[in-house]
Amino acid sequence: MATSAPSSSSGDPDPSSTNLRPPLSAYDSWCGVAHGCTRKLGLKICGFLQKNNNYEEKSRIGGSLKDRQTSKTLFSWENSDSQLRRTETDFSNLFARDLLPAKNGEEQTIQFLLEVVDILTNYVHKTFDRTTKVLDFHHPHQLLEGMEGFNLDLSDQPESLEQILVDCRDTLKYGVRTGHPRFFNQLSSGLDIIGLAGEWLTSTANTNMFTYEIAPVFVLMEQLTLRKMREIVGWPGGEGDGIFSPGGAISNMYSVMVARYKYFPEVKTKGMSAAPKLILFTSEHSHYSIKKAGAALGFGVENVILLKSDERGRVIPADLEAKIIAAKQKGHVPLFVNATAGTTVYGAFDPINEIADLCEKYNMWLHVDGAWGGSLLMSRKHRHKLSGVERANSVTWNPHKMMGVPLQCSAILVREKGLLEGCNQMCAGYLFQQDKQYDVSYDTGDKAIQCGRHVDIFKFWLMWRAKGTIGFEQHINKCLELAEYLYNKIKDREGYEMVFQGEPQHTNVCFWYIPPSLRGMPDCEERHERLHKVAPKIKALMMECGTTMVGYQPQADKVNFFRMVVSNPAATKSDIDFLIEEIERLGQDL
Amino acid sequence: MATSAPSSSSGDPDPSSTNLRPPLSAYDSWCGVAHGCTRKLGLKICGFLQKNNNYEEKSRIGGSLKDRQTSKTLFSWENSDSQLRRTETDFSNLFARDLLPAKNGEEQTIQFLLEVVDILTNYVHKTFDRTTKVLDFHHPHQLLEGMEGFNLDLSDQPESLEQILVDCRDTLKYGVRTGHPRFFNQLSSGLDIIGLAGEWLTSTANTNMFTYEIAPVFVLMEQLTLRKMREIVGWPGGEGDGIFSPGGAISNMYSVMVARYKYFPEVKTKGMSAAPKLILFTSEHSHYSIKKAGAALGFGVENVILLKSDERGRVIPADLEAKIIAAKQKGHVPLFVNATAGTTVYGAFDPINEIADLCEKYNMWLHVDGAWGGSLLMSRKHRHKLSGVERANSVTWNPHKMMGVPLQCSAILVREKGLLEGCNQMCAGYLFQQDKQYDVSYDTGDKAIQCGRHVDIFKFWLMWRAKGTIGFEQHINKCLELAEYLYNKIKDREGYEMVFQGEPQHTNVCFWYIPPSLRGMPDCEERHERLHKVAPKIKALMMECGTTMVGYQPQADKVNFFRMVVSNPAATKSDIDFLIEEIERLGQDL
Repeated sequence: MATSAPSSSSGDPDPSSTNLRPPLSAYDSWCGVAHGCTRKLGLKICGFLQKNNNYEEKSRIGGSLKDRQTSKTLFSWENSDSQLRRTETDFSNLFARDLLPAKNGEEQTIQFLLEVVDILTNYVHKTFDRTTKVLDFHHPHQLLEGMEGFNLDLSDQPESLEQILVDCRDTLKYGVRTGHPRFFNQLSSGLDIIGLAGEWLTSTANTNMFTYEIAPVFVLMEQLTLRKMREIVGWPGGEGDGIFSPGGAISNMYSVMVARYKYFPEVKTKGMSAAPKLILFTSEHSHYSIKKAGAALGFGVENVILLKSDERGRVIPADLEAKIIAAKQKGHVPLFVNATAGTTVYGAFDPINEIADLCEKYNMWLHVDGAWGGSLLMSRKHRHKLSGVERANSVTWNPHKMMGVPLQCSAILVREKGLLEGCNQMCAGYLFQQDKQYDVSYDTGDKAIQCGRHVDIFKFWLMWRAKGTIGFEQHINKCLELAEYLYNKIKDREGYEMVFQGEPQHTNVCFWYIPPSLRGMPDCEERHERLHKVAPKIKALMMECGTTMVGYQPQADKVNFFRMVVSNPAATKSDIDFLIEEIERLGQDL
Repeated sequence: MATSAPSSSSGDPDPSSTNLRPPLSAYDSWCGVAHGCTRKLGLKICGFLQKNNNYEEKSRIGGSLKDRQTSKTLFSWENSDSQLRRTETDFSNLFARDLLPAKNGEEQTIQFLLEVVDILTNYVHKTFDRTTKVLDFHHPHQLLEGMEGFNLDLSDQPESLEQILVDCRDTLKYGVRTGHPRFFNQLSSGLDIIGLAGEWLTSTANTNMFTYEIAPVFVLMEQLTLRKMREIVGWPGGEGDGIFSPGGAISNMYSVMVARYKYFPEVKTKGMSAAPKLILFTSEHSHYSIKKAGAALGFGVENVILLKSDERGRVIPADLEAKIIAAKQKGHVPLFVNATAGTTVYGAFDPINEIADLCEKYNMWLHVDGAWGGSLLMSRKHRHKLSGVERANSVTWNPHKMMGVPLQCSAILVREKGLLEGCNQMCAGYLFQQDKQYDVSYDTGDKAIQCGRHVDIFKFWLMWRAKGTIGFEQHINKCLELAEYLYNKIKDREGYEMVFQGEPQHTNVCFWYIPPSLRGMPDCEERHERLHKVAPKIKALMMECGTTMVGYQPQADKVNFFRMVVSNPAATKSDIDFLIEEIERLGQDL
């Protein structure tokens, strides 16, 4: 077996215990901080506060550790020794009400959070360990009945913190390790440590993107990052607009809304009855969110016209033009074309330039759904696959897919400034006051269809800082190399058939595994029926064994096939080899 | 000054340092776990794995700490001592590429994450410390120019982990402490420790809600929690449907979509032109998201009819009936009424029963927007304010507001089963295969307008476990008591005028502060103009001092007034007193 799994057996900690750690006299984080630091510099105090309180604004000093240790005797925390030392804690007699803001809740709070972090760091460690299962599969009824005491019920009375810690362990135990090197099931996979740290900080900051007032740093980070993304798309100076939204489907929905607003702004006020019948075009291989948007926004699914694709899943521009003309002949108005950069199943890139020519010719909005493939813009080697993207009016790009940013992180970029706001603005007086003391153009909330908006930017910004553009590029190139490796490995291998011929454009490798019992059977209905059942059966066995996960689906007249994708930074060639061996092991007797 | 702030001065750690902790020989989390545990029980191994790997499925054992310590000599981790001990780490020479999944990246990973946790727990601690500022205000241009070296730029090359840690500290330093006991600016406030732990776990699990396949535990938690919420709404047996969405605005949008689908299902296919002109009704005090939904979904804002409210902000049912009749006379079809349970500014509860009578009479969909006020259903004392809610067809309820769940956590509940799915289903073959090995009715993704969906349930479920229903009830009752305290304190106090008379229904207390210079001035245009500027000016000063934050806004013909709300579990009467003193301090000379 070609796998790099170490031969050691590593045991899970006992999930029912809460006091695993032996007494550690100096295990303490706040304490450490308190000892190593503090000084007063750059004191700036409001008049009132000066009299009544001890507000301090500390500025950063670049002093060495030694300097700081010297200073501790001058400015040590009054409460550091008594409250912040790590101690054995009996959580069975503690409850949520004993944590901060409870009086004297500091110690329990830090002990509890450290215990949680212990569980999480253990999980992180095991996630990357190939001797750990990807999942420990159970059916819904099994989990609902209570696995070994794992009880999901909610009750009137509180549970102890000990039970809460057990719940945390159990939740992870029965979940799926999406960061495992052998998890290939979704376009989003991997567990980026910087991104994880970013999410932990985001949760701790617990704020909301609608105004600069309560999210000054995050609002600016979003603005700078969106500009950078627009530069990479190729819009001069990174000009334009954009927003992070809760996923690619919503980003695509934004593109349709903005297109409608651009051409028929009166729809905002008067509704769809103010416009003629508007037609949206997207390929039969495109993501279903365009149809969802068509249904939700009042266009109707039958006015979302599906375009034919070639055998590789790329839209056929001539079919688009024929359908534009047909729509116009019916008196309908072709409004919007979605070109997909990286289709969900085949990973195909529609020919953007040819589509852009037609959009210009017929005065239509061009959207590029790069939820999956947009990230290839970060790679000098692969960005040519999106050639023409700079001609798009809007672009969806999900860093939470190919760039490994934790879920969720999706951007909608719009070339023309002001449309997002014009389209969605409702001028709520209680949020977007115009008489604030700062430049209120930074209050971005009125661009959104949401009111409150989760902070999705920080983890992405932090990852970009930590990896640099070059780090993302390397990751993307590596994933594409792994996909190429898989393609070359199986394209002529006995027992495999490729769903489409030629090297994949993205990391999607689509193939059938043909069990020995079907090899040599003529291409007939019976073979189709039996082959259709192979991928689901292998997938079910994989999940029951917990060894790996990969997706499958039918597509049009093609029976169920595997769709392998690589976006996980932890994956190596050995994991690709493992997948193939696993498919053969589980499928050989089907 | 009536405040419980301790008189001690507590210094921030030096934000530029990364090695604050003195060498601690036993500071180690994984190591502790490794020592205290492990055993093999319930071994279940796939045939192949048995030969090639050491997959184990451990079951929980209930042994005491002593038992576990005894067992460690038998099953200690092979790698525990070498890799998992806390060490002084120089992050200036480490980069993201040195962390897991990098070879031998375990130690750096744990050290880095522990350093981040150190920053975060320090932040948590300070958040509850009243000697800490709520915010350290800077204008956008100041932050963009680089505050004391805080640089937001993204570059091609990676930054060291030391710089990443500095970035984390700076991000928190220049942000807003929304969990601070004196942060009253939004409906969402507070920093719940259990919820925080839940979010940290959610980020670590990094999965997606669309299928049971990759989120088995979270999908079941969502289902059970939604059922519980529906029971509390009063739907028999908790029957019905629902989903967690990215905020109250989207939840409200769902309600409009589902109502349209119920009465005019053909709109999904044919678009809005298949339906007559459909009218939505909502009060002039309701949240702007109903108008946003009207605009986005193709109804048009002018078909969202605003209803008159009484002086307390509650909708006037007679006005609704008059407007229903007027719409019908124009040949339009009244489709949907939104009753607000807890308006954003006044905290008013619309009379649901009277509105429900009209909805039944005219065969309309009744939605209750309880984003803010829905949580009062958890309080036996206050739930009568939503009397009639069980007659609603759909309910929005945001646990991230009054229940203190970290952002984001919003539910849309629908009384009739199947509508959400019918409305949004697109049957994507690559996600929602019908030939999976488990009961695919648990794949909830096709109910959503999103494709991927963030896991918002876990933190809420965990908080419910930790507090019990009774814990939420106590929190809600306490917040309402604090609001009552504020109301009683200022209603007859010199220099205050209430925006509406009588005790508030929710925690919203709306008032003008009248500076001495305006007291006694007759009610004229000049007074209006000057009073309009008072709240923004005080707010600006508050933010510059960083002492507290409270919202203000105009409403219809009423000039800017303060809207105080309480949802923060950390707030006490002393914080209310502080707010009033602060307003008077900052406003006395205006």
